[in-house]
Amino acid sequence: MDFTEVVTSRRSVHEYADEPLDDETLETIFENAIQAPSSYNLQPWEFVVLREDETKEALREAAYDQEHVTGAAASVIVLGNKDPEAHAETVADDMLEKGYLPNEEVRDSILENVAGMADLPEQERRVWTVRSTSLVAMALMHAAWDEGVATCPIGGFDPDAVLDAFDIDGEQYEPVMLMTMGIPAEDAGELQAEAKYRRPVDEVVHYEEFAPEREAPAVPADD
Amino acid sequence: MDFTEVVTSRRSVHEYADEPLDDETLETIFENAIQAPSSYNLQPWEFVVLREDETKEALREAAYDQEHVTGAAASVIVLGNKDPEAHAETVADDMLEKGYLPNEEVRDSILENVAGMADLPEQERRVWTVRSTSLVAMALMHAAWDEGVATCPIGGFDPDAVLDAFDIDGEQYEPVMLMTMGIPAEDAGELQAEAKYRRPVDEVVHYEEFAPEREAPAVPADD
Repeated sequence: MDFTEVVTSRRSVHEYADEPLDDETLETIFENAIQAPSSYNLQPWEFVVLREDETKEALREAAYDQEHVTGAAASVIVLGNKDPEAHAETVADDMLEKGYLPNEEVRDSILENVAGMADLPEQERRVWTVRSTSLVAMALMHAAWDEGVATCPIGGFDPDAVLDAFDIDGEQYEPVMLMTMGIPAEDAGELQAEAKYRRPVDEVVHYEEFAPEREAPAVPADD
Repeated sequence: MDFTEVVTSRRSVHEYADEPLDDETLETIFENAIQAPSSYNLQPWEFVVLREDETKEALREAAYDQEHVTGAAASVIVLGNKDPEAHAETVADDMLEKGYLPNEEVRDSILENVAGMADLPEQERRVWTVRSTSLVAMALMHAAWDEGVATCPIGGFDPDAVLDAFDIDGEQYEPVMLMTMGIPAEDAGELQAEAKYRRPVDEVVHYEEFAPEREAPAVPADD
């Protein structure tokens, strides 16, 4: 699909057709999604894809009983690894081999930087992983829609309940968001309604200086 | 451009041609980018676009003197608003009007939820805004590349120095990332090198349960 069509026609969908998502479709979607960039290319993301009734039901309980978690063909837990060093050597060696880094000294200094990041307080590592993992989450939603698969990102869930239900180590992994995925129902309301409001470009883009006051609603003149 | 081509051919580029980015091109790019979803559609993002030498120089100083900050036609400060209520009424009224919400009671309960989010500790609001703002940042990189404009996301910078240099209120706004943008140099190394390593889909996607141990490198058998 044309890129502009993907981004302008994508909607967050809650109503799905009763059609499964096969492995091949998911593979294609994830293969495109994981081309996303990340800090030092460290790719701190993991995805737990649930297609069985039992596991989707468990996730729904941790997501304040939102119906589409079980109604979708697949529900995904998007996890961020809070350990920057998890894949650092593989990534640094790759960049050296392919000429992105000039020599071993630069490779070593990158690994030192990453080790420094690993020493940061948990809170900073959390922000770090949420940033990179949200990049891939956006790419995942677009990659899905490019295959005709609708998604809905979910920020409203109990992270501790998700960790508990799926036996995930919360010391190392942050549940960044949940996402439902599936072929949309033919009459899915979101695909028929007018697109939701977007703050206009001339409100959100500031040139040369940050002037948020221009966002204030205009005060009507008295005369 | 075809979606798959956008995501597979995009690279983080450091070397840019000496060509300006005009307003119209930027408008097209941002118009596509801001179609990104966000928590409750609250769109907590702001972009400060710098094309003047003086402002790019100031940003470069806050970004540990990275050359491409001044070498790019535009450098962008991507900000996240830490106040979930900033645009809440506009967004909730829009969802009610377009039939995304069934009635005023649901609209009001959403505004109550958002007010509850606004009462969360700064650290939680920070994670919240980084999540939504990183979604739009990914869309921005893809939207730029669809217009032939390369980008490079930058996580390595001094956030306090950015706030200071551009007189931005750090109580309300989080510098989520920086981004350089421009037509790539004809001989930009990143566009000629082999794409950087990506952790394979079967390592990052887990079905039904989270089994990170499968990521461990295989131990060669002795025999």
